[in-house]
Amino acid sequence: MENPLETILNPRSIVFYGANNNYMKMGSTQLLNILIAGYPGEIFPIHPREDEVQGFKAYKTVLDILPEKDLDFAFIVLPSEAVPKVLEECGQRGIKHAVVVSAGFREMGEIDLRKELLDITDKYGIKFLGPNCFGFFNNYISWDESKEGAINTTWVALNPKKGRVSIASQSGTFMSHVFMYARHKSPIGFNKTISLGNEASIDLVDSLEYLGNDPGTKVIGLYIEEIKRPREFMDVARRIISSKPIVALYVGGTKAGGRAVSSHTGSLAGNDQMFDAMVKQVGIIRAMNLEELLIYCYVLDVCPVPPGDRVCIFTNAGGPGANMADIAERLDIQVPEFSQELQDQLRTGLVSTAQVKNMVDLTFELDISKQYSGLPKKILKSDEVDGMLVYGIFGTTFFKLIEGYDVKAMFPIEEMEAVLFPMLKRYARFPEKYGKPIIASSMLGREDNAVAYLQDLNIPVFEMPYQAVKAFWALTQYRKILEKFKNQQ
Amino acid sequence: MENPLETILNPRSIVFYGANNNYMKMGSTQLLNILIAGYPGEIFPIHPREDEVQGFKAYKTVLDILPEKDLDFAFIVLPSEAVPKVLEECGQRGIKHAVVVSAGFREMGEIDLRKELLDITDKYGIKFLGPNCFGFFNNYISWDESKEGAINTTWVALNPKKGRVSIASQSGTFMSHVFMYARHKSPIGFNKTISLGNEASIDLVDSLEYLGNDPGTKVIGLYIEEIKRPREFMDVARRIISSKPIVALYVGGTKAGGRAVSSHTGSLAGNDQMFDAMVKQVGIIRAMNLEELLIYCYVLDVCPVPPGDRVCIFTNAGGPGANMADIAERLDIQVPEFSQELQDQLRTGLVSTAQVKNMVDLTFELDISKQYSGLPKKILKSDEVDGMLVYGIFGTTFFKLIEGYDVKAMFPIEEMEAVLFPMLKRYARFPEKYGKPIIASSMLGREDNAVAYLQDLNIPVFEMPYQAVKAFWALTQYRKILEKFKNQQ
Repeated sequence: MENPLETILNPRSIVFYGANNNYMKMGSTQLLNILIAGYPGEIFPIHPREDEVQGFKAYKTVLDILPEKDLDFAFIVLPSEAVPKVLEECGQRGIKHAVVVSAGFREMGEIDLRKELLDITDKYGIKFLGPNCFGFFNNYISWDESKEGAINTTWVALNPKKGRVSIASQSGTFMSHVFMYARHKSPIGFNKTISLGNEASIDLVDSLEYLGNDPGTKVIGLYIEEIKRPREFMDVARRIISSKPIVALYVGGTKAGGRAVSSHTGSLAGNDQMFDAMVKQVGIIRAMNLEELLIYCYVLDVCPVPPGDRVCIFTNAGGPGANMADIAERLDIQVPEFSQELQDQLRTGLVSTAQVKNMVDLTFELDISKQYSGLPKKILKSDEVDGMLVYGIFGTTFFKLIEGYDVKAMFPIEEMEAVLFPMLKRYARFPEKYGKPIIASSMLGREDNAVAYLQDLNIPVFEMPYQAVKAFWALTQYRKILEKFKNQQ
Repeated sequence: MENPLETILNPRSIVFYGANNNYMKMGSTQLLNILIAGYPGEIFPIHPREDEVQGFKAYKTVLDILPEKDLDFAFIVLPSEAVPKVLEECGQRGIKHAVVVSAGFREMGEIDLRKELLDITDKYGIKFLGPNCFGFFNNYISWDESKEGAINTTWVALNPKKGRVSIASQSGTFMSHVFMYARHKSPIGFNKTISLGNEASIDLVDSLEYLGNDPGTKVIGLYIEEIKRPREFMDVARRIISSKPIVALYVGGTKAGGRAVSSHTGSLAGNDQMFDAMVKQVGIIRAMNLEELLIYCYVLDVCPVPPGDRVCIFTNAGGPGANMADIAERLDIQVPEFSQELQDQLRTGLVSTAQVKNMVDLTFELDISKQYSGLPKKILKSDEVDGMLVYGIFGTTFFKLIEGYDVKAMFPIEEMEAVLFPMLKRYARFPEKYGKPIIASSMLGREDNAVAYLQDLNIPVFEMPYQAVKAFWALTQYRKILEKFKNQQ
């Protein structure tokens, strides 16, 4: 049987309940965002009074739509008490898939309304996301090769960068906030995101199974408040982890976290130690906060899995480099002292204050080929490390920000860029060439043009050194998971 | 005796060695940045061949400068072997203060050169920062009320926001990178930063003492690789912490960190457990990475110290709120369930899906007065919490980013802003009014106009929920330190 999420995430048409022409209404914003994102299919707004909604002909009920129209998906943003009636009509019209954004079926103890809802969807075989969810996002909608586009049913009118990270979340809105975050930060590329809500029909396990089979998804992220079917969850996760990593954030394990989530989605809080044991057994990488969830998913998408746990710390500023070395050791990442032979190779041509034992510290070095070509090649080629953690990516934005001076006359910016960018382009291919990740950090952030350039070539450049170390940690975790899996074969 | 840093950080004039008219040279950039920052004093470049450096008359030696000129500070960016001679001349000219950027006195074992340097400075009573340091920054240079300005001797031509955080660092360059970071992130306000280098003359203890007595400095941050005078360090720190918090990042305690710092500044690595015991005894707040150092210093500057450890988690998105609650409990911050009385007060007028037990989750709420006025007042006024952790600050930037639509016709942006900003202004006064901190997070970041507005009114708004929780943790640590201090009186 096809997973119902296939149709929901790639709807050929949308019957939309709850939008009108007032954009300050939640449903209206969600319809608007579907349009802005570039949804390529047909849209049928249902409205009791309006003749037209956001430029589309509106229908009084779904039953008024011409019978030859192929309808198989409804998106519902109505007060909860109105939902059963429209689902009944959807069922009569042959619709088998829905998203129910409406809340209030479970949180406040309205058990009867929830039962009414399920009686109807059971009768008609309707599978749905929700209730109390906030839609989904798909960066690669595809049901006809001529109809490519994205679909965004969330509140935020921004498509994130395309990529291979997909996230299923038991919390609603925040995944859309992530799209804003990704704009001004590191460019994590999303494939699909799913908001699960109260999971009356489609649940976490269904989503995990769907994303596990989805060829567009390389990394799965999960935001978890409660696992209702732990055995099935573990079985499905176990089948997935040999081909794609799973990263999970679980917030329901502490007293405060448990109280927060149990009133939020009406579920009981789980147990932290139990969750921890479960993910360790199955081979899920655990994130402790939203940032870790995003960082781990991001690097697992764009970086090769390192062959081991040994890292070179490579810097042009002592402090951030030493901080990376310190943090690495605390996370059981090895920072081996290089062999005398490799040290001698690296030392050639460096200033006397540079150091090459590992960490490698260039200090002040105008010849950027040392940073982006000569040394990293020697290091990655050697069998002494499995990856590189870099601090200090500086482009030319730095100079351009100087105000009140004739900067172009003072600094050879064009000449620098003519050397820098081709070099960065070759540098960005090293991870693939040597099978070892390069993960960088630079406090200059994406505002700097070299940082942005490398990020866009899939070299992670975080703002903070510790983020790079944690990112490498996630990669080593996945390597260990894969090895354990192989040994069990 | 006056601390020599007083003169170094507020020089009336600068004798500058090592700049010319080629801006790609380190010394030239540093002189340029002194000018860009708005240094109000006189500058005397010394150069063996040039008649003019960056528009200033250049002198062959310091002894060629007219004797009536009041000289008391030299900034030296020369090859190390050239330094003793110029320091000898500075001594003859009566200069008692210097910064020696030049490296290579100790890292590579050039013991004799170091000894030569110290013999000369001892002879003339010259106190200096370095060698192998990268200068300093002072946002409030003051030696004459008519001559206000900043002085920036680092490589980065950007003045950070003015504030009361001062940092002394045994690593050189990275403090200047922080200035770029602060630009695109939360607006930590700096007072002074000092790069210590190899501490041949002025050391960490001198800097700590100076910043402890400095009326402009409210919070002291330290980046530490090694403490050479631990007893004096503890004595000085102990005298300071009752009037201002000290946050310290120490990177030399692990094997990898120790190796990184010992080759970098030529010092021996200390011991992590010893450092930890020391800071706990004295009452220093320990940061484990650069981000924590910056976050802790920032909130200790702009937030009131909370009267206790109980926090309200206040959100409009379940996931980030629950994540904050979970992290808070792991950091021993209490998230108490509210009394029925307070819950009833909060519940009034909220949507049925909202929750008020703590966490408080508004969910989707168009009436922003609930978020910024009614509920926070009731919560902060109650004696049930000591502060608030907030997720979800959204201005109108969000709407303005929509492309290809007549956004102004669709959304009442001006009307929203007319309500929002005055409300935010009053909201930003609550921490002072109630003596309880509000620390927020919003993944929208500073790009969002409400986020930027609150940040500029000294309400911290971090990008990530965990950052807000950690920031609150630092405040509770300082409260405990103050209490311990009071009990010892």
